[in-house]
Amino acid sequence: MRALDLIIKKRDGQDLSAEEIFFLIDKYNKGLIPDYQIAAFLMAVYFQGLNPKETAALTAALAESGETLDFSSLGKLVADKHSSGGVGDKTTLALAPLVAAAGVPVAKVSGRGLGFTGGTIDKLESIPGFSAELSLERFIELIKENDLAIMAQTERMTPADKKLYALRDVTGTVENTSLIAASIMSKKIAAGAGVILLDVKTGKGSFMKTREEAFHLAETMFRIGKEMGRRIVSVVTDMNQPLGFAVGNALEVKEAISILKGQGPADAETLCIILGGYMLALAGKVRNPEEGQDELRKLLKNGAALEKFKQMISFQGGNPQCVDDPALLPQAKYVEVIEAPKSGYIREIDTRIVGKAAALLGAGRSYKGEEIDPSVGIVLNHKVGNRVLAGDILAHIHGNKEDLLQVACRELMNAFAICDEAAEELPLVYGVVPPFPS
Amino acid sequence: MRALDLIIKKRDGQDLSAEEIFFLIDKYNKGLIPDYQIAAFLMAVYFQGLNPKETAALTAALAESGETLDFSSLGKLVADKHSSGGVGDKTTLALAPLVAAAGVPVAKVSGRGLGFTGGTIDKLESIPGFSAELSLERFIELIKENDLAIMAQTERMTPADKKLYALRDVTGTVENTSLIAASIMSKKIAAGAGVILLDVKTGKGSFMKTREEAFHLAETMFRIGKEMGRRIVSVVTDMNQPLGFAVGNALEVKEAISILKGQGPADAETLCIILGGYMLALAGKVRNPEEGQDELRKLLKNGAALEKFKQMISFQGGNPQCVDDPALLPQAKYVEVIEAPKSGYIREIDTRIVGKAAALLGAGRSYKGEEIDPSVGIVLNHKVGNRVLAGDILAHIHGNKEDLLQVACRELMNAFAICDEAAEELPLVYGVVPPFPS
Repeated sequence: MRALDLIIKKRDGQDLSAEEIFFLIDKYNKGLIPDYQIAAFLMAVYFQGLNPKETAALTAALAESGETLDFSSLGKLVADKHSSGGVGDKTTLALAPLVAAAGVPVAKVSGRGLGFTGGTIDKLESIPGFSAELSLERFIELIKENDLAIMAQTERMTPADKKLYALRDVTGTVENTSLIAASIMSKKIAAGAGVILLDVKTGKGSFMKTREEAFHLAETMFRIGKEMGRRIVSVVTDMNQPLGFAVGNALEVKEAISILKGQGPADAETLCIILGGYMLALAGKVRNPEEGQDELRKLLKNGAALEKFKQMISFQGGNPQCVDDPALLPQAKYVEVIEAPKSGYIREIDTRIVGKAAALLGAGRSYKGEEIDPSVGIVLNHKVGNRVLAGDILAHIHGNKEDLLQVACRELMNAFAICDEAAEELPLVYGVVPPFPS
Repeated sequence: MRALDLIIKKRDGQDLSAEEIFFLIDKYNKGLIPDYQIAAFLMAVYFQGLNPKETAALTAALAESGETLDFSSLGKLVADKHSSGGVGDKTTLALAPLVAAAGVPVAKVSGRGLGFTGGTIDKLESIPGFSAELSLERFIELIKENDLAIMAQTERMTPADKKLYALRDVTGTVENTSLIAASIMSKKIAAGAGVILLDVKTGKGSFMKTREEAFHLAETMFRIGKEMGRRIVSVVTDMNQPLGFAVGNALEVKEAISILKGQGPADAETLCIILGGYMLALAGKVRNPEEGQDELRKLLKNGAALEKFKQMISFQGGNPQCVDDPALLPQAKYVEVIEAPKSGYIREIDTRIVGKAAALLGAGRSYKGEEIDPSVGIVLNHKVGNRVLAGDILAHIHGNKEDLLQVACRELMNAFAICDEAAEELPLVYGVVPPFPS
């Protein structure tokens, strides 16, 4: 088998076998196929696409390129959840303990964020003492003991995916649904999840600008999961405004705690309940998602989910008192406000501007390995559709550097479009793949 | 300017400016853009194509990547000729002295062959003492003194083309007309030609399998030449059977000498006259190609072309007595014959099989830098359409190794298809771009 022949085969629109795809990824991972051949292959894939079987084979090859997790000794399915990323998306922080509290183990392996705000790991690490740098052995142990752990992806997991992504990033081959789907799913598969809930965001603040693209990605990932014998649901959700109110690492942890106390923003809480309902149903814990939702609402009300979160913090070295006293979380030195310049209805909150302003304050990374400031960020006061009066506070801006704070406030003013006519609220969920139950 | 942005621009079907293409080639040539980005770019070009302006810009960038020749001090246009390559194509050997004898300087810079038989340089170097390893200064001097010189391309000419071709070769991006055309034309432009005659071969024994592909390449190269202010004609000619009878380096020199003596195979002589007619007309030496053809026939008859060839051999260190006594050229130890197995008409001579058999004997290279045997090869006795009787000699096979000779004879038997019905002769020329005069 020669890489050149496989490049030409794909270039000419022919399908590759699983064996051929495994050959390309395995040899590339071992340094036996050079970057330039894989670059040409990726561009051929960009134009010719990958069929579902090829995409599943790519996923498997990427997953098997490094260490993999095996939870079969638990005797029950372990669940994982993935979001394609958005501004203010703290769902995992609340959803993981919520589902675990229902008796479905949640084993989440997560990467660090790159972009507007940190990833789940960065957010959690804003809790004093908390560490997501676990060994695989310790991770499995924690799942056994507490049904819940969140660890940072190690260098030894899916190394071929990292290598391939780095190459895609510099060769104009990022924007292909099959490649995106295989990359995401390879990490879920390597992490040993039997139940997978995918939250595909669509809208101005996400990678998938159109609903059509989002559904295409949702379906592609669903098919990979099915092909690989996983219980899986993809939910397409809105990212035309930030989720909840908080954007920024410690600020989002604080909001997640509110959700777990049953005092969170309605949209963020509702999304947790909806996604969690599917997870419970997939895991066979309940007969249908609606029954799962009822169960989860109880666990919010009776404090079990909050308790599970505290336990996880303890097990991973963090200070669980933060949950009762969020003032123990990192606090920014300065808090500024911006006010509504006129009365009216909020027609739009430009999610990209909000994300960029948070990143400017230090909440996000512009390159891999960059330090982030856990304390800074933005807390909005309103959602799209709300009515405001001139002078009402639109948002609080938390910063540690006065000059950046001023710039962020100015930028943020541009995020709000206020109009005279009543503006409609945005939907939360656009659809589910497959229509449940499948 | 960033390579990544230009890859994405081309990937998305947008046109690149000449400046952008120059940036890519110049930086790549200097090692400032890595192979993997150019590999992705080339695959994007494979799918999106290059428009005529982009193709001309690529040609110019490749030409300017190294040393270039300038014949402006001559005060007259210098002509060059290029063939896309075929089996038994010794046209340049006879055509160059023929055109030079008419007073149009021919300055040919040629690469070494890779494939069935050697290139023009390899063929000429089968003449004892002949050297094509000239400095640029000596080359220009020879053109001034004798209107004729043929030199091997140096490492310092069009280095970016070599680098790009090597990359295309291993990334499945060879088969793109714009890239092929720019590669060929960059060498012509760097070699300083004012008059360019392109012989694009089509048929089983050439790179362009279909006439459509050949005309597309012919037109693409013609447009590049026009765009760059050259006088240029592309002729599409047949390569469904070997040109003339001889295939192999010294054997082809011998046949070229026959042509220059007016005793060559009709097809090879006619092609020289036709191509030369265009060159004389392009150079403004005659009013039209037909007048050029008449002139060239005279120069064959009166011995002027042969004399010019002898002079070139002398000037380049070779033994000109070879022309009068071809037995001084390298001779193979053994000569075998193959015979017609039955009577009938030759319907086909499979050019690829003839080429492969010659290569097997040692006439060609399978890798760059491989030694070739100048003496070996094949001399056919017939053209397609000829009638033969059972037992008639179909070809003489010249070899230096008995075992290879036997294999070559067996292979060669498969090249001939003899049928009972009269078979039509093959055409020599399929068309000219532009229809002359343009």
